[in-house]
Amino acid sequence: MKGSADISDTASTHDASESGYRGEALKVLKAVHATVGDLVRITSKSGPIFEGIVMPRPALSTDELHIVIKQKSGYNVGVDIEQGASVVVLKRASEEAGGPRDGHTIAAPKRVVKGLPTVGLLSTGGTIASKVDYKTGAVSPALSAQDLYDVVPELGDVANVRAEIISNILSENMSPETWSMIAEAIGKRVIEGGVDGVIIAHGTDTMHYTAAALSFALRGLPVPVVLVGSQRSSDRPSSDAAMNLVNSAVAAGKGPFAEVTLCMHGEIGDSFSLCHRGTKVRKMHTSRRDTFRSINAKPIAKVQQGKVEMLVQEYEHRDPKRELHIQAKFDGKVGLVKTYPGITADLIDSLIDEGYHGIVLEGTGLGHIPEKLYESVKRANEEDVVLVMTSQCISGRIDMNVYSTGRELLAMGVVPW
Amino acid sequence: MKGSADISDTASTHDASESGYRGEALKVLKAVHATVGDLVRITSKSGPIFEGIVMPRPALSTDELHIVIKQKSGYNVGVDIEQGASVVVLKRASEEAGGPRDGHTIAAPKRVVKGLPTVGLLSTGGTIASKVDYKTGAVSPALSAQDLYDVVPELGDVANVRAEIISNILSENMSPETWSMIAEAIGKRVIEGGVDGVIIAHGTDTMHYTAAALSFALRGLPVPVVLVGSQRSSDRPSSDAAMNLVNSAVAAGKGPFAEVTLCMHGEIGDSFSLCHRGTKVRKMHTSRRDTFRSINAKPIAKVQQGKVEMLVQEYEHRDPKRELHIQAKFDGKVGLVKTYPGITADLIDSLIDEGYHGIVLEGTGLGHIPEKLYESVKRANEEDVVLVMTSQCISGRIDMNVYSTGRELLAMGVVPW
Repeated sequence: MKGSADISDTASTHDASESGYRGEALKVLKAVHATVGDLVRITSKSGPIFEGIVMPRPALSTDELHIVIKQKSGYNVGVDIEQGASVVVLKRASEEAGGPRDGHTIAAPKRVVKGLPTVGLLSTGGTIASKVDYKTGAVSPALSAQDLYDVVPELGDVANVRAEIISNILSENMSPETWSMIAEAIGKRVIEGGVDGVIIAHGTDTMHYTAAALSFALRGLPVPVVLVGSQRSSDRPSSDAAMNLVNSAVAAGKGPFAEVTLCMHGEIGDSFSLCHRGTKVRKMHTSRRDTFRSINAKPIAKVQQGKVEMLVQEYEHRDPKRELHIQAKFDGKVGLVKTYPGITADLIDSLIDEGYHGIVLEGTGLGHIPEKLYESVKRANEEDVVLVMTSQCISGRIDMNVYSTGRELLAMGVVPW
Repeated sequence: MKGSADISDTASTHDASESGYRGEALKVLKAVHATVGDLVRITSKSGPIFEGIVMPRPALSTDELHIVIKQKSGYNVGVDIEQGASVVVLKRASEEAGGPRDGHTIAAPKRVVKGLPTVGLLSTGGTIASKVDYKTGAVSPALSAQDLYDVVPELGDVANVRAEIISNILSENMSPETWSMIAEAIGKRVIEGGVDGVIIAHGTDTMHYTAAALSFALRGLPVPVVLVGSQRSSDRPSSDAAMNLVNSAVAAGKGPFAEVTLCMHGEIGDSFSLCHRGTKVRKMHTSRRDTFRSINAKPIAKVQQGKVEMLVQEYEHRDPKRELHIQAKFDGKVGLVKTYPGITADLIDSLIDEGYHGIVLEGTGLGHIPEKLYESVKRANEEDVVLVMTSQCISGRIDMNVYSTGRELLAMGVVPW
């Protein structure tokens, strides 16, 4: 039993009450002997009818008035039963024990459909590959790439997916060494051939750093490389995992571009996804599903209803004959210092003392830092530590020629970016 | 001669050719013996007619086809003379030497108009108080608060301004000590009485840090305190200094709120300004005039055509009888560390070693940092160094209860913000 959030495992070991349901919701489920994993139809008093798989609730949940089901679309919904509702069990999870699920719920994992593109799915970890601990309500990484494919059956409608776990690293623990590992894994897939594109499932916290690193590491890409994550785990109501996975598979399988991009929700609803250039994208909101935004650039493509629409005219075109070169050596001795009022030379000096080779200065405005750091800037220059200036403003360009302070920093060897 | 960018000084010492004009533009100006500082009417071949004061050009400018004039509105415009244009001198700068300018160009500085609110204008430095070095084209701080008042005559139409220079510090060199000095200076003005509001002219790079600091330092404000800056210096075409100053004077003089706010362009055009709460505002673009944005909040007021429209219902109301208390002691031993993939414990450890009392961690997503920093987090906790978590996402809230890593950090004493 590899993960307690796996529907079939849960269904075989828990009844509804053990899966977090209580009060009215538990009563309604028990009345028809429905358990987690069953396919049900819920008719609410106010009208709407929902069909889907009963999902477990966190043990710490105090909600007694919603039944959470995973719909055929892959999208979870919490059905309000406060005004009363009737539940019909369409198919019991126990009927399927030991065998593959039917098409309605779980796609046969190894089915290969002719005419569909083949996409490599490399899972690195993060929310999109996470499960909820139903005892504590906390989210931790667990689902395998195969699980992702299992819980999002629509993936099978857009691509033949070859899933593989290459790591189980939380987004915040990613590092330059991980970037190299991921670049090599992508390279292996692409150079072996047989894939029309590659998806990287990744935690969202630092996905844009990885996207930028891969953009520099993968030279001469013949096919699209698409990073994808999820802001809400795949067994939560309102999870964005299913749509993000499906649309990233469309982008990787059919997108006409051969660049590293990041594909996530284009707005808070579920209408479309956007593909952002790996070097131009940033996580801009802690929780919104459309958290990723292109900065100082337009997204390069829009993915909607199985189609990829290019939003820019200039891009690297898909070309299966192009030869991939991997340059994935990252220097771990590069630091970042964000300046702020009152900053002293301590931070920069400590990195110089530790033998760093380069420091990114996240200065203010057009590229400025406090005067009292100038001595450390000179010292860095003398000791061949490269200082690169960027701005904490987020948007806009650095311009160190406007103010005399910027010009002084240029004269001291600071590189504008 | 206190500032070479002062129009009357420039006019008395330079002719047009010495003030950066060349080629066709110089020819057109010379034909009518027009010099910098003259009030002229330019009729362009394509139709539009412009009236205003001839402004100097940077010595390094290669533009030969525009004459830059400061219009009565305070807004500078570069008039295209490529298709031909006729220039008429309406009033020569030399005619006014030694005396105050007339109402069209420069308001009499000490005029007090009955019925207008009285506003204190404290100048701290920055672009809004800057001039261009016409030899090198670089911008450096110079203009006094009085100069600001001189070059933006419309200020006299909305408020009686009592201008004062309290410092000449570039934005990037502001520090907790400066915040205390500014808070004390505001307090002195407000407690002495006689002002309906206070404007702080400040460089834009760190203006939002100062705005936040003043919000905490000024307790029980009876009147508005409005920070204002400029993205382009006041003697450049397209400078935002004039509109920003006028609208901040309207906000300070007539605004119904008694809070610390920051008043700047509301969009890239000149239609309106927005007042942002001091604790909610951030510089989001290196060069746009509407660079300041309220984050996770709405701006509290809109200023347009001399009127203040409140955009929120809840705010501290103006109350001249309220007693101001100043709490302006800031601990300089508080640092900020922005995390990134590959960060090591060096940065946090160096601040603990240096005896810091607190460190703001700018983590990723909902409030996460790499696991390899946990030992330093524990050490900070043991040594009573307060660690506060915020997110580099910019927008959205911290929530350290969603993922197990957040919960571990909470257990280690990290304070979510």
